[in-house]
Amino acid sequence: MNKYWGVSGMRIAQVAPLYESVPPRLYGGTERVVSYLTEELVRQGHSVTLFATADSVTRAELRPVCERALRLEGRRILDPLAHHVRMVEMVAQEADRFDIVHFHIDYLHFPITRREHFASVTTLHGRLDIPDVTPLFREYKEMSLISISDAQRAPMEWANWVGTVHHGLPENLYAAKEEHGKYLAFIGRISPEKRVDRAIEVAQRVGMPIKIAAKIDATDRAYYEANIRHLMDDPLVEYLGEIGEHEKTEFLSNAYALMFLVDWQEPFGLVLTEAMACGTPVIAYPMGSVPEVIDHGVSGYLVDSMEEAVEAVRQIPGLDRRLVRKIFEERFSARRMCRDYVTIYKKIRASSPSFLPGEPLSSAA
Amino acid sequence: MNKYWGVSGMRIAQVAPLYESVPPRLYGGTERVVSYLTEELVRQGHSVTLFATADSVTRAELRPVCERALRLEGRRILDPLAHHVRMVEMVAQEADRFDIVHFHIDYLHFPITRREHFASVTTLHGRLDIPDVTPLFREYKEMSLISISDAQRAPMEWANWVGTVHHGLPENLYAAKEEHGKYLAFIGRISPEKRVDRAIEVAQRVGMPIKIAAKIDATDRAYYEANIRHLMDDPLVEYLGEIGEHEKTEFLSNAYALMFLVDWQEPFGLVLTEAMACGTPVIAYPMGSVPEVIDHGVSGYLVDSMEEAVEAVRQIPGLDRRLVRKIFEERFSARRMCRDYVTIYKKIRASSPSFLPGEPLSSAA
Repeated sequence: MNKYWGVSGMRIAQVAPLYESVPPRLYGGTERVVSYLTEELVRQGHSVTLFATADSVTRAELRPVCERALRLEGRRILDPLAHHVRMVEMVAQEADRFDIVHFHIDYLHFPITRREHFASVTTLHGRLDIPDVTPLFREYKEMSLISISDAQRAPMEWANWVGTVHHGLPENLYAAKEEHGKYLAFIGRISPEKRVDRAIEVAQRVGMPIKIAAKIDATDRAYYEANIRHLMDDPLVEYLGEIGEHEKTEFLSNAYALMFLVDWQEPFGLVLTEAMACGTPVIAYPMGSVPEVIDHGVSGYLVDSMEEAVEAVRQIPGLDRRLVRKIFEERFSARRMCRDYVTIYKKIRASSPSFLPGEPLSSAA
Repeated sequence: MNKYWGVSGMRIAQVAPLYESVPPRLYGGTERVVSYLTEELVRQGHSVTLFATADSVTRAELRPVCERALRLEGRRILDPLAHHVRMVEMVAQEADRFDIVHFHIDYLHFPITRREHFASVTTLHGRLDIPDVTPLFREYKEMSLISISDAQRAPMEWANWVGTVHHGLPENLYAAKEEHGKYLAFIGRISPEKRVDRAIEVAQRVGMPIKIAAKIDATDRAYYEANIRHLMDDPLVEYLGEIGEHEKTEFLSNAYALMFLVDWQEPFGLVLTEAMACGTPVIAYPMGSVPEVIDHGVSGYLVDSMEEAVEAVRQIPGLDRRLVRKIFEERFSARRMCRDYVTIYKKIRASSPSFLPGEPLSSAA
């Protein structure tokens, strides 16, 4: 612990999106990660303030921005942006109470953080290969950014990256099983880029059951009807619909392998680490962050074709599920994520001009 | 002309939304008004800079923010917000070149205008009875706002309103006819709140043809099929689809009256002034801004029931279409709109702390 922050830790603000509560009741990858990070920071003795919806649940000090997760408001909420702009203003007005402000809301705070001189850092949670955001990031190129994988940075290598922090999960969230399961698992959305069709094809070629825990968004309904629905008739295929967080341990820990044969530059892939937490190996195409998360031949197999995917299924019994879980604990726990972030917070704080007036900057490193 | 701005006029920035070009190729009420104002300011000798899409057409100096109207990009543009945030930053960095910056992009610039001390004013172009924007406007209650009708202010009477400026149209844009036409006219979208069904019912009750120039948005398609389509079968009803700007004079000037029997708090209602420019009276429910625009018994009739609407149709021949046009020229021309805005610009500039260093504020009023 740095001498300046002593036993009481750092004063940290976490700024979450408002579409979901923290943690989310429905799907919300960013809000889940913010929750894991916030609770672990509190557990490690930091003084944490969370800017989020009022229906969030946290041991940190909650600054409620709006009553409920905006996604729950349905048609009643017409302007989510207004709440986010107001939240940034709330943060700015309280900023001198924090050693560091950690934003998880893309770029909306950049105009204010450029003009106010509080220490801040921004984790970008989404894909960056969207041409129309690039000019904005070029404009604000002094902003300290954190990537959630090295691969995510590719379209914006020139940005002011101060670190990559892989997501982490609480260690007790999922329990691992040591024996190999009896079915292949698919979890996520049924959308073209997630390629549930490939997962089903592999199951058919090896003659192993596959269980599909997935939601079908309204935008993907036509794709499902035209391309996927008929595949569900195979007796090897069991479609479970969307499952909740509490059902995931059961679903994943009893699986033989998680199928992740996506056509998509995954920025991180939280589900890969959920499988690992359950001891379940992953068979994946090496898209985006995947090679950073899965160790080929240890926690799963990276494959470049359907033939290799089929062969990988046959190799799974050679993997040690206890080792998969162990790698999860070492590399993808909330504890490790928290440690990484605190290291970056201290580095930014140390190089921030407003750091401890009167103290030489070098003593704070 | 104020002595400080002399013959070369004021240095004015207009900041337009980027969804459409200025003027818009497709529908875009705000972008149209920004275009009319900008061109008239130039004509009146001011030095105007327009922040807008690169495919905008103007005699002002154009600061292109993105290549094309974002609405034309279809699915390719995933993040319109990023372009708008960047535009505000561009404006801020050039702000010391302008006497006043006039924003037409709702509230997105508030965090920056609060922190930079350039003179600015914001016209709010939309409805304000949206509960989730109210807390934001309360937070930024120092912002100088202009309403497009007095009625528009109702949900936010407490805001810092510096004026109401009704929209205005170039005087030569539409030509008036002196003789009364032979059909009722409906123009706009076919959506539940626009109540084309009421317009058709009035036509049926008086036995007069009605021509409908309207688009059907994807979101309104089901409403159209269930509630409106069968009404179109009446031989009195002629559906023209969507018509372009250049067809409007012909359509409106040959009409007997414009039917505006809406269920909607209209913030302004540009089409009311288009009808007046063509000499065509309006029969309207007195919703929102309507009573501010239509003079009952002069430029049309304000009615409170279908019976009154039917009766109003019978009264139309008693109105003088030359007078309708004359009222348009006096109250709803771009020239008048421009004059109103310049008066406000000067007032704001005069009370702005950065105004003419060394000159006493009072001399600039």
